[in-house]
Formats: sequence, C-alpha cells, structure tokens
Amino acid sequence: MAKQDRAIRTRQTILSAAAKVFEERGYQAATINEIIVLAGVTKGALYFHFPSKEHVAEGVLNEQDQNLPIPDRASKVQQLVDTVVLHAHRLQTDPMVRAGVRLTLDQQAQDLDRSGPFVRWSEVGNELLEKAQAQGELLDHVSTAETADVLVGSFAGIQSMSQAVCEYQDLPGRVSSLLRHILPSVVIPSVLASVDITEDRGARVHAELLDRAARHEAAPVS
Amino acid sequence: MAKQDRAIRTRQTILSAAAKVFEERGYQAATINEIIVLAGVTKGALYFHFPSKEHVAEGVLNEQDQNLPIPDRASKVQQLVDTVVLHAHRLQTDPMVRAGVRLTLDQQAQDLDRSGPFVRWSEVGNELLEKAQAQGELLDHVSTAETADVLVGSFAGIQSMSQAVCEYQDLPGRVSSLLRHILPSVVIPSVLASVDITEDRGARVHAELLDRAARHEAAPVS
Repeated sequence: MAKQDRAIRTRQTILSAAAKVFEERGYQAATINEIIVLAGVTKGALYFHFPSKEHVAEGVLNEQDQNLPIPDRASKVQQLVDTVVLHAHRLQTDPMVRAGVRLTLDQQAQDLDRSGPFVRWSEVGNELLEKAQAQGELLDHVSTAETADVLVGSFAGIQSMSQAVCEYQDLPGRVSSLLRHILPSVVIPSVLASVDITEDRGARVHAELLDRAARHEAAPVS
Repeated sequence: MAKQDRAIRTRQTILSAAAKVFEERGYQAATINEIIVLAGVTKGALYFHFPSKEHVAEGVLNEQDQNLPIPDRASKVQQLVDTVVLHAHRLQTDPMVRAGVRLTLDQQAQDLDRSGPFVRWSEVGNELLEKAQAQGELLDHVSTAETADVLVGSFAGIQSMSQAVCEYQDLPGRVSSLLRHILPSVVIPSVLASVDITEDRGARVHAELLDRAARHEAAPVS
C-alpha cells in the first residue's frame, strides 16, 4: 500500500472511531484518548491528521456531505428530492453520517462552529433550486435561498423527531411527508406531478449509486 | 405565604436553576449538586419535589408547553399559527422554554425519554387542525395527524438552525417562512388570505396575553 493510501486509511479509521465516541459520549465529554484507544492508533498519528478535538469533530461534521455524487436528473426538482431522500437513507444506515448530524445539533458543543453543515446544505439546495428555476420548474414567487433554508432546517428537525420517537425507523415516511407539504408551494404543478417522492426513493437512489460505482470500478482503465 | 405557595415557589426555583445547569453543561454532565447550589435549596427540598435528576429534567421538559393559554380565534388555522409563533417568541425570550427545547433535542440524554414534547406538541397541533377541518378551513386531502407531525418536526429543526447560525436572532423570520411554505398545502386559499403570519406576530400575541393576564389580576374577586 502506498504511503498516501495508508494515511487516507488512518484518517478514516480515526474519523470512524471519533464518530462512535462523539455519538456515545457527546462532544463535550469525549476525549482524544478515547478516540485513540478505539481507533487503535498512536497519539502522534492522530495529531498528524488533527491538531485538536475540535478538528476531529469538524472532520466528522464534514463527512456527512462528502461522497455524495447524486446522479444528474433532467428535472432539477427531482435531483433535489433525490439529494434529500438519499441523505435520509444514509442517516439510517451510515454511522458516520449520523454522528455528523448529531454533532451539528449538539447544543452543548459550544466551542464548535456547528453552522457549517447548515450553511453548506443550504448552498447545495439553493444551487439545485436555481437550476430548477432557470428551466422553469418553480413557481414565479419563489426565493430559492429562502426555500433552501426552510428545507434544510425542517429536515434537521424531522430527523431529530424520528430519532427521538423511534430511532429513525419512520424516517423515510416523515421525509416524504415533509416534501409533500413543502414542494406544492414551490414547484409548478406539471413538474410536481412527475416527481417521485415515494418512501422507498432513498433506498433506490442509493442502490443506483452503488451499482454505478461497481460498474465504474470494473471498467478497464484506458 | 401559605405552605403550598412556598412549595410551588421552591419547585419553580429548582426548575429555573436546573434549566440553567442543563443548558450550560448538558443533561449527561449536569449533577444534582450543581442544581442544589445554584437554586440555594437543601438536598432534602430538592428530593421532596424530584426523586432523581431524570425527574428534574422531565420537569424542565414539561415547562415548555405549560402556561400557554392561546386566545381563542375564530379561525383555527390562525390559532395554530399563533401557537407556533408564540412558542418561537418564548424560545427567544424565556430561558426555561429554551432549556426544555434543548433537552428535547439532546441526543446524549439517553436515559431520558425525549419523545414526550414531540408527542404532546403533535397532539396540540392535531387538535387545532381537527377543529380547522371541522369548520372547513383545510383542503380536502389533509391528514391532520400527518400535518401536525410535519409542523412539529420541522419547527424543531428551524429553531435549531436559527440557534446554530445566529443564536435565535432570525427565528421569527424563519418560522414565518416555514409557515408560508407549509400552509398553502394544507389550508384553503380564502382562509390563507386572511391568516396573519407576519414576523412580529409572536411578539404581538405575547403582548396580548400579558395584557389579558394583567387585567385578570386587576379584576375584583367576586
């Protein structure tokens, strides 16, 4: 394994361990030592990648919107929906994404700037909404930045409610319900009629992405 | 002061102190001792009211939806809006309400049942929506329970985003924006046209309630 590959792998090992520790203990109570022990790395290795606990937490926060290559859709509203439902699906299935979202909502993590994920998700949403607007998919009055903020904020609460009530079991249904309440105020009826917001959409988009990745890896290098 | 009044006052002193301690330290890290010291009460007095830290936390959780006598409105949609914007206003101005909401969203408070406030707020919302439905204010397809859940969940996230981004300064604007995105999917246009969702609605409802309470206290006992 090349030196660089090993470094990338160590970084991922640390982030995975940190995700577990933050999720169990909360940001404030978690210590660098607990992360080192769980990751099975030396203190030197950790500090090589992350100069402080805050930097490790930022690494975990940033993972939630990494590796998210949503397939291009002709309808940018559908692409926005797919981004949202895929995130919900990853929240149910990927501990790293879950830890990132929990840190974002951890109000005791006072020395951590938790606004980053909110701001970045809003930018992602706004960009897709602007494209949708440019191709005439949105109602005339829509302010894309305002709608992006509403979507990001309300999603954060919907996932929190689903976690508190039943540990995410009903998350796909709640997200689909949220979108069915918000999109009619934003999207023109003819586009709305052909957008897929069914509950299993997230799982299907996820499977599609895995399938693409597998075919990409299997392709001959030219 | 009657014995009972004193007991009620001590209970409130403990809850106020607990709200501060939970907000600063988080549920998991907070101790009964810190609450006793800040409240200036004896251990015996605290245990008389609350047998454990969990019970104190539940007391704080429950305060967020107490003392909330929303004035009766002819339009039940307006009454629902007023309930939401008043809660947002109290979240900005009342440390006890803020502590309750923070505890509700504290994912590290693992031995605490945090579903209560979500469930109760959904019931409050559902009840008002059912009344609105009975008097023909809602669109035909609306499931009141589903809409109540969407409102409660999305509100929780909107407030969390506002807290993370700017310590609640833009909360009234964000809540008004949320309602403008959701209500058109739920309420018939003629009712929607006369519902007040402007940003200062919460402050005005709050002032109205204070005014009523003052006049009530000033009224002669008959």
